[in-house]
Amino acid sequence: MHTYTHKVAYYETDKMGLTHHSNYIRWMEEARVDYFEKIGAPYDALEKKGIFSPVTRAELDYVRSTTYPETVTIETRITEFRGVRLKVSYIMKNADGEIVCRARSEHCFLDKEGRLIRVKRDEPELYELLSGLAEEE
Amino acid sequence: MHTYTHKVAYYETDKMGLTHHSNYIRWMEEARVDYFEKIGAPYDALEKKGIFSPVTRAELDYVRSTTYPETVTIETRITEFRGVRLKVSYIMKNADGEIVCRARSEHCFLDKEGRLIRVKRDEPELYELLSGLAEEE
Amino acid sequence: MHTYTHKVAYYETDKMGLTHHSNYIRWMEEARVDYFEKIGAPYDALEKKGIFSPVTRAELDYVRSTTYPETVTIETRITEFRGVRLKVSYIMKNADGEIVCRARSEHCFLDKEGRLIRVKRDEPELYELLSGLAEEE
Amino acid sequence: MHTYTHKVAYYETDKMGLTHHSNYIRWMEEARVDYFEKIGAPYDALEKKGIFSPVTRAELDYVRSTTYPETVTIETRITEFRGVRLKVSYIMKNADGEIVCRARSEHCFLDKEGRLIRVKRDEPELYELLSGLAEEE
Repeated sequence: MHTYTHKVAYYETDKMGLTHHSNYIRWMEEARVDYFEKIGAPYDALEKKGIFSPVTRAELDYVRSTTYPETVTIETRITEFRGVRLKVSYIMKNADGEIVCRARSEHCFLDKEGRLIRVKRDEPELYELLSGLAEEE
Repeated sequence: MHTYTHKVAYYETDKMGLTHHSNYIRWMEEARVDYFEKIGAPYDALEKKGIFSPVTRAELDYVRSTTYPETVTIETRITEFRGVRLKVSYIMKNADGEIVCRARSEHCFLDKEGRLIRVKRDEPELYELLSGLAEEE
Repeated sequence: MHTYTHKVAYYETDKMGLTHHSNYIRWMEEARVDYFEKIGAPYDALEKKGIFSPVTRAELDYVRSTTYPETVTIETRITEFRGVRLKVSYIMKNADGEIVCRARSEHCFLDKEGRLIRVKRDEPELYELLSGLAEEE
Repeated sequence: MHTYTHKVAYYETDKMGLTHHSNYIRWMEEARVDYFEKIGAPYDALEKKGIFSPVTRAELDYVRSTTYPETVTIETRITEFRGVRLKVSYIMKNADGEIVCRARSEHCFLDKEGRLIRVKRDEPELYELLSGLAEEE
């Protein structure tokens, strides 16, 4: 499990006075990208090797609102990786420890031509790394 | 069913050369907001009456990539409304008519103090309007 | 002079209840990109030829606020192009014809390696097109 | 002078492979908001008191490109405040200490009804605080 914090920016609020819901999907990316950096597989290094990891699915349950200037803590877990589809879950909490959003995302790995990479076969080190981190949700 | 078109902006792309996935959740809002305007219940009028409609859940399946300068057509349907929770679905297609994203969102209605509005009881006209549009997915 | 309209999106507002100021620089891009499409030099075609046109300077005077669901009309003018630096000005008006923002941007043209293109010499057709449109501010 | 750091997010890049220019105006806000927090005048506290501080002008010179995953350091200075118009300057540097962007912004102070606040007269403490920080550019 990996922990990342994001401070809500003023520009992330909307006229309801709250964080606009579209920002949480960006925070998921910030947290995931930070996780990949921490485990030694930063996105820029993967991309230099010709490995791209687009989002194929995202799912968000908004539980409580947040707003500027709150700080949100995001717990990120790799919940499944058997070589093709990476599943990630996110639990976002406010400063009081209350859950503000639960989310999940799914990703595949593509080469420069947009063809699916079978990570277990083609990138065994990345496979070991990611599958080794997978934990029950 | 309501149709809305969005032209992908240059600033919506990312370094993969494609539309960043976080924009689709914004297009869902554009399409939904446009739908509400067309049926005579624009968000600004609702908010002036003290009715706010936050997103409580969003779910997106990214099927094909898009990029600048493509135009995406979004078919929006109200799939359920029995007075509390509004469910909306979105099918996004590229210029060739291929599905690029399937998505769903859920919404509730709150008053200025953030209390749940029971629309059937408290806003019968809005209830009739939205429930009358609900169709099978 | 080229005219483009942008409808303020709900997600472009902030907790002041107004359009967040960072969106206007995006509308400038939308208007400029649309202008380039209309004159037959779309950004995607330029980029396929290996011509990139980054922003080197932007300047915005915010005159009146706007908010969702207003529509903003943007008058775009090429004010100078002698072969290296492109200068563009923007006058943004609300539905009442009142100026909401005056802005200017400057751009250069780069090749894939990030080297400055001398458009007059290297891309004479593009030079004729853009310099022919230049008008006094 | 106040220093703030921003890590370029993946979603802040565009199809040129670089940070989209519209993000720098958001980083200016992040830096300025952080500065106001550090000096004990956070935006949310000002807004609770009915003081709003919109941007009336912004000016950016883009010197060098940045991209994910670079970290940008922003040096923020209040360059003028005599009671009505606040002028702020920003120097943004990459990890090598090279300037990537020079920028300036101007702000006024409004009450809830959008009327100009004469800070020297109406909010003497805020006036002392901000004018005391003003330094030559």
